[in-house]
Amino acid sequence: MIERAYGLTTDLYELTMAAAYFENGIQQPALFDLFIRRLPAHRSYLITAGLEQALDFLSELRFTADQINYLRALPTFKRVSGEFFDYLASLRFTGDVWAMPEGTAAFGMEPLLRVKAPIIEAQIVETFLLSTINFQTMIASKATRVIGAAQGRSVIEFGTRRAHGTEAGLFAARAAYIGGCIGTSNVEAGHLFGIPTFGTLAHSFVMSFENEDDAFRAFIKVFPESATVLVDTYDTIAGVKKLIRAFRGSAIPAVRLDSGDLCELSREVRQLLDDAGMTQTKIFASGDLNEFRIADLISRGAKIDSFGVGTELATSFDSPALSGVYKLSGLEEDGQIKMRIKTSKDKATYPGPKQVWRLADSTGKYIRDVITLADEPEPELEQNGFSHSLLNQVMKNGKILDRTDASIAALNVARERALHELKCLPDDLLLLDSEIKYPVSFSDRLKRERDKIELQIARR
Amino acid sequence: MIERAYGLTTDLYELTMAAAYFENGIQQPALFDLFIRRLPAHRSYLITAGLEQALDFLSELRFTADQINYLRALPTFKRVSGEFFDYLASLRFTGDVWAMPEGTAAFGMEPLLRVKAPIIEAQIVETFLLSTINFQTMIASKATRVIGAAQGRSVIEFGTRRAHGTEAGLFAARAAYIGGCIGTSNVEAGHLFGIPTFGTLAHSFVMSFENEDDAFRAFIKVFPESATVLVDTYDTIAGVKKLIRAFRGSAIPAVRLDSGDLCELSREVRQLLDDAGMTQTKIFASGDLNEFRIADLISRGAKIDSFGVGTELATSFDSPALSGVYKLSGLEEDGQIKMRIKTSKDKATYPGPKQVWRLADSTGKYIRDVITLADEPEPELEQNGFSHSLLNQVMKNGKILDRTDASIAALNVARERALHELKCLPDDLLLLDSEIKYPVSFSDRLKRERDKIELQIARR
Repeated sequence: MIERAYGLTTDLYELTMAAAYFENGIQQPALFDLFIRRLPAHRSYLITAGLEQALDFLSELRFTADQINYLRALPTFKRVSGEFFDYLASLRFTGDVWAMPEGTAAFGMEPLLRVKAPIIEAQIVETFLLSTINFQTMIASKATRVIGAAQGRSVIEFGTRRAHGTEAGLFAARAAYIGGCIGTSNVEAGHLFGIPTFGTLAHSFVMSFENEDDAFRAFIKVFPESATVLVDTYDTIAGVKKLIRAFRGSAIPAVRLDSGDLCELSREVRQLLDDAGMTQTKIFASGDLNEFRIADLISRGAKIDSFGVGTELATSFDSPALSGVYKLSGLEEDGQIKMRIKTSKDKATYPGPKQVWRLADSTGKYIRDVITLADEPEPELEQNGFSHSLLNQVMKNGKILDRTDASIAALNVARERALHELKCLPDDLLLLDSEIKYPVSFSDRLKRERDKIELQIARR
Repeated sequence: MIERAYGLTTDLYELTMAAAYFENGIQQPALFDLFIRRLPAHRSYLITAGLEQALDFLSELRFTADQINYLRALPTFKRVSGEFFDYLASLRFTGDVWAMPEGTAAFGMEPLLRVKAPIIEAQIVETFLLSTINFQTMIASKATRVIGAAQGRSVIEFGTRRAHGTEAGLFAARAAYIGGCIGTSNVEAGHLFGIPTFGTLAHSFVMSFENEDDAFRAFIKVFPESATVLVDTYDTIAGVKKLIRAFRGSAIPAVRLDSGDLCELSREVRQLLDDAGMTQTKIFASGDLNEFRIADLISRGAKIDSFGVGTELATSFDSPALSGVYKLSGLEEDGQIKMRIKTSKDKATYPGPKQVWRLADSTGKYIRDVITLADEPEPELEQNGFSHSLLNQVMKNGKILDRTDASIAALNVARERALHELKCLPDDLLLLDSEIKYPVSFSDRLKRERDKIELQIARR
């Protein structure tokens, strides 16, 4: 059993800053934006995921007595007053959150989430929010690429064994499902999130029998309607011939190829199965697959009905980190917002509470996004075009708004949304090696606000 | 609070195979090897990690009633008997495990861990063992590269926000510590594993004050002995000058550079600090660092005392998956071992219970490894050389042997071991772009056994 109380799931500096704010009597509400500064290599869009876990965290955040005692004893905190630790012991997240719903297409510089909360609360949640949104968004985005390459054939996620630990495997399964996988091999993801689970059998099962066909019989006896028979333990073609000798004409659901030249083998195996009257038996392929290898297999005429993708999907292997950041954009004082920016080289930020507007043409195809201040009106549209805003309030005073209790339903809505988003994005953006950059701009007012503050900082 | 019961932390096929074994009356003890087939790109050795979590899992594995009910209701299991689910409800891991201790240098094809247990128990633990050992070993190995590049300067892990979720961040911190980091920013890792924690402050803290020097004062007041002051929120050199104006001659522990040309800036900042009599103030640097950038900074004469490494370390960014596998090597029947191998193209395996011998020269430098059957004698040594075997029994009948209750002490032993291993490895192997391959061979007896079984399979 893994039990982890959320309080210390954070970086030490969140807590030293919290102590410094507390000891200096600073408690005002602060605004933070969570955004990806620029899309990573090989990505032309992102699909958001992880919001449900982020909100769960915010609503359940607390420090246990044991955790407080640990902190108290750290030499770092030796000059910090007992009042601070009493404050931590009773701390709950009481802020407001706006976010893009899961499954939304997103781009660089766009806030995926913004927080308004008393500054200590808003600050200490940074690490968890980033870790969760960065990871699931990265995986959902990767999944859409793999699924796009499969051109309508099914893709199943099965990378837990290569994921960055078992929790990463669990949430990779969730995010990959949002991105369009039909399911996962991860049973915990099936149980906790209602995601369809799929499984075949391992080489070890075949090897545990003296003869390969004995293994096939033993497995098919128990799973006649769902068995996907692994045929490559010794020699793929010989394995398929043994299967056919034992089950000619019967309705074996599927065979699995896991090594060798999958294109060549799939064609041979399809022919053998068809010749034996087993035209209903599907071919499932796996083995170090990714979007490029799947596209190549299909273009070469592979006879594969569905793909299992593990390592590449569960780690986003070609681009294994999303560098989301969480930046202060303002402070509230007497109901007024004092705008804030950072001017570090290459790491500059924009001030104030923001909204992201997505502009579409009359057919619904997305044209460009505009990042505005939250109180700005809808940007001017293209002729006959539409627009919609992406950031909705999802938490108020620490309470989740409109929470669908059935997270299975919510997850399927996110999955449908992602599918719809991909249809609305410019077609060229979906190419695996797209060099197109989707246009994202800041509103004139936001740019003016930024310039004004930059000038103030320079004058200090 | 995150609560996860271990039973379903597995792939569906582990459970379908379990059901097929059960329904076919197969319960004999089986032997499995966990190994990395070949080292990934850019790695010439591995440092093992994750065994503690693997053993915790094995000793705590069980299925809750809720989990059993979920499985029972899956259409996949509709032909599986109620007895199987009763069996699962009472299942405990009762097997034996041999493993390389954490912090051991390891190479391709070498079992890092081997399991002997009733076949269902041995099979269903595959996913968790792989996910855990693959991930922590990958991170510990990456950490040794980063630390090697730092040439004695301290390296602190702070990648949780970019890790693959918060559990990945937690265990990345643990593995990076084994690999030689002096600590982590992850507070949970500090609390659970006793790892030293480090923190600075974020740009948001500086930005929350009207003036940068007010922020410095507010923070240093609370953390006079430990503050690492972030100076690049607006302009690094201007920031340092403000710090000096406010604190000239005093013992500010450190400043942190997080953007711009770290080499150039570190030299300027060092000069400014020294001129102000602040020679004791250290310079800490961060910002998309990895082993190559650190080596470059040092070779160019950067005046940096310690490094914070996040994304690259917590994701093993340049090589983000370790493709460990878990393969059946034999079955026990009437006390005899029936050897097993797989002959799939490029994925062949070796049979039987194994030992790994490490041969060193008279100075203790490692020369080569030999993988043997477990009951073979020590291989023939080089003149005046040594050898030692790497796989020790760590679990017997499901009970952890010689468990150090203080996991902090065990972790420090693993960290010391890793340090020692790096000293014993051939020097050329430690180059960041080493093309040397450390020699690993199989014993003649193991090769003969393999050939014999291959022939038997071909004759079937």
